Amino acid sequence: MPRPSRLTDEEIGAALKDLSDWTLKDGSIQKIFRFADFIAAWGFMSRVALIAQAMDHHPDWSNVYNTVQIKLSTHDASGVTRLDLDLARKIDGTL
Amino acid sequence: MPRPSRLTDEEIGAALKDLSDWTLKDGSIQKIFRFADFIAAWGFMSRVALIAQAMDHHPDWSNVYNTVQIKLSTHDASGVTRLDLDLARKIDGTL
Repeated sequence: MPRPSRLTDEEIGAALKDLSDWTLKDGSIQKIFRFADFIAAWGFMSRVALIAQAMDHHPDWSNVYNTVQIKLSTHDASGVTRLDLDLARKIDGTL
Repeated sequence: MPRPSRLTDEEIGAALKDLSDWTLKDGSIQKIFRFADFIAAWGFMSRVALIAQAMDHHPDWSNVYNTVQIKLSTHDASGVTRLDLDLARKIDGTL
């Protein structure tokens, strides 16, 4: 299956209206998630890891205790594609 | 148990001689780990998560596909403490 092509900022902006708190910055869509503690943050990350692996599309993400920052972009397309929006939707669906 | 106190750069430098590839930078000890793929990187992160939670001492870390960057410092001490060196040793022990 060919990788989806890079979306324009306008297309991304339109799609982000249907997503909560994701923003476009530096060529990726980004969101910061805060949880009660590390156990809750790690539980979330574990769910996202399984989803990402199943999609063969992985986040650029960081964690400090109860906070997880996720950045999504498609390396092959040098920008944001439909794949990133799909993953963002699935990530929000784990909450 | 009281948190350990902040170590001097000299003390940290001496301790890092016994650790492989950890460096002191911006008030934390840091190391980048590379694996075959995301599954291997995630397996490593899962081991570190359990160790960190058991120590109640958590890393500042990020992951992109097969790469994991870990930064260790002790928030309460505003710097690197013996706790960070202990965690670094245990992290290397999972490899």
